[in-house]
Amino acid sequence: MTNHRVINFNAGPAALPVAALERARDEMLDFANSGMSVMEHSHRGKEYGAVHEEAVSLLRKLLDVPEDYHVLFLQGGASQQFAMVPMNLLPVGRSADYVLTGAWSEKALAEAKLVGTTRVAATTAKEGKYTRVPTQRELELDGGAAYVHITSNNTIFGTQWFYVPETGTVPLAADMSSDFLWRKFDVRRFGLVYAGAQKNVGPSGVVVVIVRKDLVEAGRKDIPKIFRYATHAADNSLYNTPPTFSIYMIRNVLSLTAEAGGLEGVEKTNREKGRVLYGCIDKLAAFYRCPVEVGSRSLMNVVFRLPTPELEERFVAEAKKAGMVGLKGHRSVGGIRASIYNAVGLDAVRTLVSFMESFAAKNG
Amino acid sequence: MTNHRVINFNAGPAALPVAALERARDEMLDFANSGMSVMEHSHRGKEYGAVHEEAVSLLRKLLDVPEDYHVLFLQGGASQQFAMVPMNLLPVGRSADYVLTGAWSEKALAEAKLVGTTRVAATTAKEGKYTRVPTQRELELDGGAAYVHITSNNTIFGTQWFYVPETGTVPLAADMSSDFLWRKFDVRRFGLVYAGAQKNVGPSGVVVVIVRKDLVEAGRKDIPKIFRYATHAADNSLYNTPPTFSIYMIRNVLSLTAEAGGLEGVEKTNREKGRVLYGCIDKLAAFYRCPVEVGSRSLMNVVFRLPTPELEERFVAEAKKAGMVGLKGHRSVGGIRASIYNAVGLDAVRTLVSFMESFAAKNG
Repeated sequence: MTNHRVINFNAGPAALPVAALERARDEMLDFANSGMSVMEHSHRGKEYGAVHEEAVSLLRKLLDVPEDYHVLFLQGGASQQFAMVPMNLLPVGRSADYVLTGAWSEKALAEAKLVGTTRVAATTAKEGKYTRVPTQRELELDGGAAYVHITSNNTIFGTQWFYVPETGTVPLAADMSSDFLWRKFDVRRFGLVYAGAQKNVGPSGVVVVIVRKDLVEAGRKDIPKIFRYATHAADNSLYNTPPTFSIYMIRNVLSLTAEAGGLEGVEKTNREKGRVLYGCIDKLAAFYRCPVEVGSRSLMNVVFRLPTPELEERFVAEAKKAGMVGLKGHRSVGGIRASIYNAVGLDAVRTLVSFMESFAAKNG
Repeated sequence: MTNHRVINFNAGPAALPVAALERARDEMLDFANSGMSVMEHSHRGKEYGAVHEEAVSLLRKLLDVPEDYHVLFLQGGASQQFAMVPMNLLPVGRSADYVLTGAWSEKALAEAKLVGTTRVAATTAKEGKYTRVPTQRELELDGGAAYVHITSNNTIFGTQWFYVPETGTVPLAADMSSDFLWRKFDVRRFGLVYAGAQKNVGPSGVVVVIVRKDLVEAGRKDIPKIFRYATHAADNSLYNTPPTFSIYMIRNVLSLTAEAGGLEGVEKTNREKGRVLYGCIDKLAAFYRCPVEVGSRSLMNVVFRLPTPELEERFVAEAKKAGMVGLKGHRSVGGIRASIYNAVGLDAVRTLVSFMESFAAKNG
């Protein structure tokens, strides 16, 4: 059976590898020769247990996660982590540092303020817009902070951190929702990392948390049990019923990544995709304009403007006719946004670039 | 393609209607002729939006949910509702009444204790076991309580409430995870109802909450925004990325229920399934024994014992060979448990009963 498929530049939920979806399709009624769907299995049974273990161990392997870190699969997305990070790691009498680089870091800060004392260590906002991430020198860090929080990639403004800030002995917490696994990174540089799965690793409904064990142990105990990392860590994310199908899909995605040789190849392709797409924008600078400073340009969400909003609208409509969807910028900023997560291949980016060239030629 | 399928008596995640799974399979790579999976769609796009709306409106229609109630799809399962109910509805200086009928209500109470002041309005525990739900007369209700909490069906002990307790002006909050939609019920009798989907309505990863609007409005504002019902109600459960695929599966299940004529037929079948299965247990009382008092016997989770643990083990193993899985009782109580949720048909129960009759004849 051939399926009609489009090129999907959605910002998240986003494109998934076709082979991961095909596997889900083929096993939908009879998973692992068990006579039922993976969704119908008990989360405590051996069949689902093997999937769960494989998802954890694939993540551990792809990232070389050190033994003193937990790998958790939780619910509620990054938005719930905005609250859970301070609930667990920000005791009364301490303060947490937040670095503001976009709408999501503002939301993370707003939620933390409802939990405890916070401080803004840096912001790159200018008249409500963020066009870059800060340099290390711009970070005014509190050496006694409970943690420093950053957003490693900013989907709306199209910026990304290409260095890991040095925070001394203060644990670094990162919302990596939109660039998690775009390449391998050194987990040891972070105290805690979280990522909603619906960009690079799976469907919505599950958030990956990688957290240093000592931070979990020192976590606050005066909060509901369900919100403690310690609860989920003690039970390998099986304290309550996990979102089994979403974790199964993560397993499907990660096993493809592992089979293809791991994250080195993923990074190489992602860098090439960025080179090709930003290259087109810069070459046609009379028509396309990227508002992001060069050193902060995201390799996951490429945002750009056309000469007028009318042309932007026509661009989105004609791209759709050409089989490319999800190119409209976030409603809060407008313009065009091409999200080119891991499952969006170099070919897809090349197709977009061809379209951009001919659109500029016709309308420039 | 024919699939090997077994009869699935799992307690949850549990059996789903085959037609709901087939629909998911057939649309996996190309949903609604959009050229992508429903999982790859933006939660803010019109394609997923239509699914979301349909799931909400099907629930509203099947239950005649009054206009002054919200229908929400949240994450974190019933376990997270154990915390969210008191976080929202239990202000400082007030107390909430809990009725204990099993392990899940104990967990709900334990979580509420971490949030505010609680009181036990009734318990049917005897030496750590629960063999019935309380009568109305046994409920020692606090007329000034913020709410009364019950667990409408107890998966581990196999008991179920067949009446809605009268709580006067005090709102009744019910964990209906394991019997939600077993029949139609009068939503107006409840202030709040919640149900993890993974029994009667879908896969794990989503919890349905039906809550009176005035309770949401009066809810506490000093908690993180993500945990306020008001946040999710204001955005029709789209404040943050919802578990789109899980909600899509709920839609698939509910549309089958609606097509089959609604919940009246579901109730009739469920009552017949219970009659047949408990009828077998009672008829073969020399071999099978149900520890639950007759008036509290659950129509969702039928628990029973055999003369010895060895026979129970053999029962489970031989049933599995005969194509029936998930019959082992919960590890905390042992014995046999047949969960016969909506997707488990009368035929499946008849097959189990035949097996039980021949097993008793051979081993009795």
